[in-house]
Amino acid sequence: MSIGLEADGAAADAGSGAPIPSVDVAPETQPVAWRHRHLLDVDGLSAADLDLVMRTTDAMREVLARPIAKVPALRGRQVTILFYEASTRTRVSFEVAARNLSADVVNIAAASSSVAKGESLIDTVRTVEALGAQLLVLRHAVSGAPYLAAEVFGGSVLNGGDGWHAHPTQALLDLYTMRERLPGGSLAGRKVVILGDVLHSRVARSNIWTLTAAGADLWLCGPATLLRGFEAWAGRGAAAGRRFHVTTSVDEALRDADVVMALRIQRERMAAGLLPSLREYAARYGLTRERLALAQPGALVMHPGPMNEGVEIAADVAAGAQSVITDQVTNGVAVRMALLYLLAGTHRGEVA
Amino acid sequence: MSIGLEADGAAADAGSGAPIPSVDVAPETQPVAWRHRHLLDVDGLSAADLDLVMRTTDAMREVLARPIAKVPALRGRQVTILFYEASTRTRVSFEVAARNLSADVVNIAAASSSVAKGESLIDTVRTVEALGAQLLVLRHAVSGAPYLAAEVFGGSVLNGGDGWHAHPTQALLDLYTMRERLPGGSLAGRKVVILGDVLHSRVARSNIWTLTAAGADLWLCGPATLLRGFEAWAGRGAAAGRRFHVTTSVDEALRDADVVMALRIQRERMAAGLLPSLREYAARYGLTRERLALAQPGALVMHPGPMNEGVEIAADVAAGAQSVITDQVTNGVAVRMALLYLLAGTHRGEVA
Amino acid sequence: MSIGLEADGAAADAGSGAPIPSVDVAPETQPVAWRHRHLLDVDGLSAADLDLVMRTTDAMREVLARPIAKVPALRGRQVTILFYEASTRTRVSFEVAARNLSADVVNIAAASSSVAKGESLIDTVRTVEALGAQLLVLRHAVSGAPYLAAEVFGGSVLNGGDGWHAHPTQALLDLYTMRERLPGGSLAGRKVVILGDVLHSRVARSNIWTLTAAGADLWLCGPATLLRGFEAWAGRGAAAGRRFHVTTSVDEALRDADVVMALRIQRERMAAGLLPSLREYAARYGLTRERLALAQPGALVMHPGPMNEGVEIAADVAAGAQSVITDQVTNGVAVRMALLYLLAGTHRGEVA
Repeated sequence: MSIGLEADGAAADAGSGAPIPSVDVAPETQPVAWRHRHLLDVDGLSAADLDLVMRTTDAMREVLARPIAKVPALRGRQVTILFYEASTRTRVSFEVAARNLSADVVNIAAASSSVAKGESLIDTVRTVEALGAQLLVLRHAVSGAPYLAAEVFGGSVLNGGDGWHAHPTQALLDLYTMRERLPGGSLAGRKVVILGDVLHSRVARSNIWTLTAAGADLWLCGPATLLRGFEAWAGRGAAAGRRFHVTTSVDEALRDADVVMALRIQRERMAAGLLPSLREYAARYGLTRERLALAQPGALVMHPGPMNEGVEIAADVAAGAQSVITDQVTNGVAVRMALLYLLAGTHRGEVA
Repeated sequence: MSIGLEADGAAADAGSGAPIPSVDVAPETQPVAWRHRHLLDVDGLSAADLDLVMRTTDAMREVLARPIAKVPALRGRQVTILFYEASTRTRVSFEVAARNLSADVVNIAAASSSVAKGESLIDTVRTVEALGAQLLVLRHAVSGAPYLAAEVFGGSVLNGGDGWHAHPTQALLDLYTMRERLPGGSLAGRKVVILGDVLHSRVARSNIWTLTAAGADLWLCGPATLLRGFEAWAGRGAAAGRRFHVTTSVDEALRDADVVMALRIQRERMAAGLLPSLREYAARYGLTRERLALAQPGALVMHPGPMNEGVEIAADVAAGAQSVITDQVTNGVAVRMALLYLLAGTHRGEVA
Repeated sequence: MSIGLEADGAAADAGSGAPIPSVDVAPETQPVAWRHRHLLDVDGLSAADLDLVMRTTDAMREVLARPIAKVPALRGRQVTILFYEASTRTRVSFEVAARNLSADVVNIAAASSSVAKGESLIDTVRTVEALGAQLLVLRHAVSGAPYLAAEVFGGSVLNGGDGWHAHPTQALLDLYTMRERLPGGSLAGRKVVILGDVLHSRVARSNIWTLTAAGADLWLCGPATLLRGFEAWAGRGAAAGRRFHVTTSVDEALRDADVVMALRIQRERMAAGLLPSLREYAARYGLTRERLALAQPGALVMHPGPMNEGVEIAADVAAGAQSVITDQVTNGVAVRMALLYLLAGTHRGEVA
C-alpha cells in the first residue's frame, strides 16, 4: 500500500503485525519485511514500511536506555557520511547512530574534500564505494543529488537532506516524536501546524507526506511569499482525501492546534526580498507564548533546529514545558539507527 | 580543605591516604573520594582533590606504558569535544585520552558547525546532550562559557580553556610534570617562573592557583603591559600566606629558578600596541640559553605549546636537555584520562 | 638488491620465496623480512621488498573480502594522519586501512590545526609522538618534509605525498593494480604511458622508479612545458638499462600501449603560463576513446584521482570497460594496510 496522495490518511497508524527485528544481531539474519535498498524520500514508503520504522525505532530507544548503549549489529560495516553542506546535528546524529550499531564511520565534509577540486559527485560516490563504504549518508545542496548517487552506488544511500526537496530522516523522527508524545499515540485527526519558511524547507516537504499519510489535519502557515505553490499542492491533497490547508493567518493556524512546528528562518531570505526583516518576521510569525496559548493546552512545540531564538521561536517557548525539541534530537539518533539497520539488511556487506 | 588564597601553601603535596581507583574498570564501581561533577576551574579543588588527580594520573601513566594502552573503563560512554577555538594539541589530547578509556568520541569544531548559523551555546549544549553526550569538553573564546554550559548540561563539563580565564587541565598537567620531574617530588619552596604574556593567559591564571597552593615560590615576569592587575593579585596572595611575586626584570625572575615556563606570545598583541615587536620581545624576554644559565642547574623548561620558536623561547632551549615540554604533552593525555575517569564516576552514564 | 637506476629492470617481478605474514595477528610476532622503519619514497625498496609488499597486499585483499573486513593486528596502536594539504581519498584510504587493522586513528588537518599558528613541523611531530602516535602518515606541500619528520619521530613515518617529490603508496598501489590486471601478472616489457602534467607530479616521479624497476617500457607524454628535465632523467635511465622514453607526441606514446595513466591537470598551471587553456589541453592531450583506440585492445586505463572529467580524461573512458580506476582505489586501501602492518612490525608500539 502506497502513502501517495491517494492513500487512506489513517493507514500509517495501523499496526501491521509484522515481526520486529531483534536489533542486537546482524540485520540479514532477521526476517524483516523491508524491501527498500535506499532511503531517498518518504514518498515511497507504505504504511507498513512506516510502521516497521516506528517499531524498529522503539527497539533502538530500548538500546539507548541501556548502560552501554551499543549493539554489535553492524560490526565491520562502513558508513560514510558525505556532507556537501555544513550541519552539526544531523552529521553527529548519523555518526552516533552508526557507532551505536558498532559500524565504522568515515566523515567527509565537502569543504575539506576533493570536491573543492571539481571532482564530480558520481566520481566521488564511486570512490567512496571503492574505499569500502556500504552505507552512504549524503547531504547535498542540489535537490535530487541522492537519486544520482543511488544510481551508481553499490550499497545503500540515505538522503541526509537535499536542497529544498527532502529530509526523510527528519520527517520520520518528527513522526515518531508526535506518536510518542500525543495522547493515544495516533496522529489521526490531530491538527499539526508547520509555521514559517515552508517554501525553502525540505523538512516541510518531507513532513507533508508523512503527516498527511498518518491522518493529521495539516496546516502550513507563513508569509505569502514563503508559501508559494503550496496552495495548489494542498488542493490536490484535499482532493485525494488528505487534510491539508495553507494560510497566512497565524491565529487561524494555531487555534486549537495539537502540534506546532516552527521552521528555521534563513537570514539569506531577506536579501532575496522575501522577508522585510527578521524583527518584523518575529513580530508577525514568531512562536511566542501568547500565540501558543491559542493552541490546545499541552500542544507540542517542535523545531528541527538549529533555532534562531527570538526570531521564529521565543526562547521561553523553546525551553518550555510543551517543547519536545530535545526529544526530537534523541529520537533522531534512534530513528537513524533503525534506518541504517533496516537498509543494511537489504544487502550483504561485502567489498567485491 | 580549600586551596583558595587563604590555604596552606604546602597542602597539595600532602598524601591523603585515600584509595586510588583501579582504573581498568568502570569508575562508578570504585570507592573514590571525588565529588565534583564538573571541572570548570582549579580554584575549587582541595588539596585532597589535587592529590587524587595526581595519583589517578599515576595509574593512567601505567596504562600508557602497556603494549596496548587501553582500558575498558568508559566503554559505551560518549565524550563530546566541542571546540569554539581551533586547537590541535588540546583537542587531540582529550580525544586520545577518551579513546584510551574506550569511550566514544564526537568531535565538533565550531568553524564547521551550526554555531556559525547563530545557534546559542545553550541550545548547542542541550542538543549535544540529547545526542547522547555524557562528558562534554568545551573550549570557548568567552570567559565563563563552561559555567553556562554546566547549568544546562546533564552530564559533566570539562573546561578545555575559556577566554583568558582558565585552563584547568593544563594547570594540572603542569603540576603533575613538576612533581614528577623535580627532585623530591614536591613544589614546596621551589621557585617557579611564568614568563611572558601573563595578561592574556588562561594557562597562567590556572597555574597561579595550583602552584601557590602547592607551596611554590611563584614569580610572574613579562613586560609591564602584559602584567597589568597581577601586582594587586600577588599582594592579596602574599597577604594570605602565598608566595607570589611580579616583576618586569627577567634577570630577577630567572635567578636560581627551579622551573621556567615560557608562555606563547600572540602576534595579535602587537597590533593592540601591547608589544613593540616580536624581535624586541625576543631580545628582552625570550628564554635563551644565556638567560636559562641564571636559573638553577637542571632547572625545568616548560611551555604549554604551540611554541613560537625564536620568539618566547629559543629552539635550542625548547629541544634541550632541561626541556620537559614533550613530557607535558604525554602527561596531558594521562591527566585528562584521570579527569574523565573521575568525573564519569559521579554520574551514571545513561540516556534518559 | 636496490632498484636504483642501475638495477635489473625485471627484478621486482621475481618472487622471493620469503614467508608472507599471517596478517590476522600482531606484526612483531611474524617472521617478516622487512627492515625499513619508514616509507619515505620507493627508491630505497629492493625487488624483494616490493615483492613482500605485493604479497602482503594480497593477504590484505583477502581480509577485505571477508564479511567483517577487519583484523586485530594493530589493536591499541595509534596512527596519526597529519595532512598539510587537503585530500579526501588519500586521507580516507589511510584511515580505513588503519581501522581495518584495528588501530586507533587521529586525524589532523593543517587548516584547522595549530600549524596555522606558526608551529614548526618538527615541534608538531614531537607533539604528535608525545600524544601517543606510533605511525605517522604525513602529507606536506614541501618536498622532503617527511625526511625531516623521520629524523625526529620515534615511530614510523609514511609519506602520504610531499610536494612534487614522491607519493610512494600511490606508486605501490599502481604497481599492484597493473600486476593484478595485466595478463600474466608481469610488467616486464609492457608499454606503460604516463600522460599529462609530469613536471608537477609526485605520482609520476614515484611511478618512474617502480615501473622501470619492474621492467616496464615506460613512456612519459605531455606538453613540452610539463616534461622539462625528464629527457635527461630518461637518458640516464636508458644508459642504466631501464626502458624510459619521453615524448610530446600523444600518438607515439599511446600506440600499442598496455597501460595508460592520465594525470590530473591543476588549473593553477594555466595562470603560470604552462598551459594555454584547459580546452586546448583536452583537445591535444585528453585521453579520449579515439586516442585510446591506438593502444592495445584491452589496455588498462588508470588515473590517481581526483579526475577532471572532460579535461585530462573523457568521462566515457574513465567509466569504460578498460578503466581500472576504482580498482586502484580499493587496492590503495589494501596496499596501505600492508605498509602499516609491515612498518609496525619494525618497532614495539609502546609509549615511553
